[in-house]
Amino acid sequence: MSDSTLRSALAAGAEFDMIRRFLAGAPGGDGVRVGPGDDCAIIEGGIALSSDLSVEGVHFRRDWLSAKEIGYRAAAVALSDLAAVAARPIGVLVSLGCTDADVPEAADLIMEGVTEALRACGAALLGGDVTRSPASLVIDVTVVGHAATPVLRSGARVGDSLWVTGRLGAAGAAVRMLQRGRVPGDDARHAYAHPVPRIAEARWLAGHGVLSSLIDVSDGLLGDAAHIAAASGVAVLIEQGAVPLHPAARRVRGSSVQLDLALSGGDDYELCFTSPAGAIEKIQEQFEAMFAVPLSRVGQVFEGNGVKLRRETGVVDDVAGGGYQHFEENRG
Amino acid sequence: MSDSTLRSALAAGAEFDMIRRFLAGAPGGDGVRVGPGDDCAIIEGGIALSSDLSVEGVHFRRDWLSAKEIGYRAAAVALSDLAAVAARPIGVLVSLGCTDADVPEAADLIMEGVTEALRACGAALLGGDVTRSPASLVIDVTVVGHAATPVLRSGARVGDSLWVTGRLGAAGAAVRMLQRGRVPGDDARHAYAHPVPRIAEARWLAGHGVLSSLIDVSDGLLGDAAHIAAASGVAVLIEQGAVPLHPAARRVRGSSVQLDLALSGGDDYELCFTSPAGAIEKIQEQFEAMFAVPLSRVGQVFEGNGVKLRRETGVVDDVAGGGYQHFEENRG
Repeated sequence: MSDSTLRSALAAGAEFDMIRRFLAGAPGGDGVRVGPGDDCAIIEGGIALSSDLSVEGVHFRRDWLSAKEIGYRAAAVALSDLAAVAARPIGVLVSLGCTDADVPEAADLIMEGVTEALRACGAALLGGDVTRSPASLVIDVTVVGHAATPVLRSGARVGDSLWVTGRLGAAGAAVRMLQRGRVPGDDARHAYAHPVPRIAEARWLAGHGVLSSLIDVSDGLLGDAAHIAAASGVAVLIEQGAVPLHPAARRVRGSSVQLDLALSGGDDYELCFTSPAGAIEKIQEQFEAMFAVPLSRVGQVFEGNGVKLRRETGVVDDVAGGGYQHFEENRG
Repeated sequence: MSDSTLRSALAAGAEFDMIRRFLAGAPGGDGVRVGPGDDCAIIEGGIALSSDLSVEGVHFRRDWLSAKEIGYRAAAVALSDLAAVAARPIGVLVSLGCTDADVPEAADLIMEGVTEALRACGAALLGGDVTRSPASLVIDVTVVGHAATPVLRSGARVGDSLWVTGRLGAAGAAVRMLQRGRVPGDDARHAYAHPVPRIAEARWLAGHGVLSSLIDVSDGLLGDAAHIAAASGVAVLIEQGAVPLHPAARRVRGSSVQLDLALSGGDDYELCFTSPAGAIEKIQEQFEAMFAVPLSRVGQVFEGNGVKLRRETGVVDDVAGGGYQHFEENRG
């Protein structure tokens, strides 16, 4: 994939506009196989790299998560970017900015949480930085992995099927409850506080040669399907009735709210991928038995661009840009 | 170098105590050649990695640096860690957390500064993250390079000479002036706002096979020499009279203040290295002609541990722990 493709292949939204401007002036390099624009950059030797910055008050609140959960979640969310290109984790660098009051207890607990996420997928702690941050806790996790043949966002082809792992909307349901000052159910809270990056699942699927494109569901299914559509130069049609709703999202009142959580809630960290028609069906039973994670065919790839949603009524809507935008309050 | 060596090889200080605790619980991995504790981690394929987190109010102030300088400096300081292991830069990941008011103008200028630092050493922008940070600007730069045979802190041998590139204390002099509400001289301000990572110099020296250990001077000569001493299991004696004082530091009133700036001011980003006796003298003229950067022999490696300073009076002092500590206010 050429750099110029990447630069124009980011989906819509204010955050992406800003990233797009940055990249327009950014130098490339000989050792870079895949530059900015996918879930990971890929450099010489098949090394995959990605960074995820979590900021107190934006990505987490201390009254929503324990210090250990803050650390676990920051690392797990970053590691999910390795899953999103089907890379084997090598390690992470952790930059932690914490207040004076966080030293040493909260900082230790944060790193305990990071360590839990690392151990779960065999990643090492490679290094990082620790410094004072007077106003708020910040944690930036850079993940490093290896993918000889990474699966990118850009490989979806017309006729492919769109699939998703697991069930969607539980983390979104938890955030919705917390924002309203209510206590989420255990399953919703767990999904939000303890996402499990689908690293083994992604590598297994990639190893079986059934993936044409891949992304993790961080912004919500609509937003992330839009990334695949934009990077691949195709249109994606999602069937509303096929979207696997998590029981925790199903308990939220209002079917349109439930659907919104599943489609745009974000924070699911499931895999969304395309595969040639009929390919997944052959290995689906084996996959679901091995990982105890369901696979759902949620749509299909067509000629065109953007994401369309076929409602259960049969009406087809354009739904581009349904993902979470960090700067959306600044838009328009 | 074994991981257990690394874990005990960090020098003294509250920040290092905290890092040491983190590492004690941190998982290692097969793909890791050099784990935490040196300027970079080195993984499979000779890939060198390091992260540097800069936080507003701790590492920079907006009334001291322009937005472009904030970006340039954050990237240059991080890239200096590649110089510190004699690695070739490949690229960087930039995680930027900025306030609503920073979008888009200040954020663009910050990334212009980052880009300037990248272009100067042939590094690519590989990716990163952009998000809102309500309280203060934060920028974390992860550098990625390649070093088939990295030069570590741990290679100093008894009898080696200790050397430093350039002249020390200018950036420290600028910070001292700024902290007192005064305007630093152009040369001091430039040294602080526009450090130049000594990447070409480090690679040239490594290529000539004259380096036994290497570090960059970020915490101050005493603190960074202490890192070499601790990692190598040796003592380092620094000759006060041989320390190359920058003219900007020489203009500060008080010879003891001048010396303190050169020894502990930090932010110099020169190279500090050890070399077998007599080796540098053979290539010194060629180096200085090529890079227009002086090389100064500032001390020697002995059996023992820690750093000693021979004053111009002949008195020898123990000076361990003379570097800047981000959390030093919490000590004792």
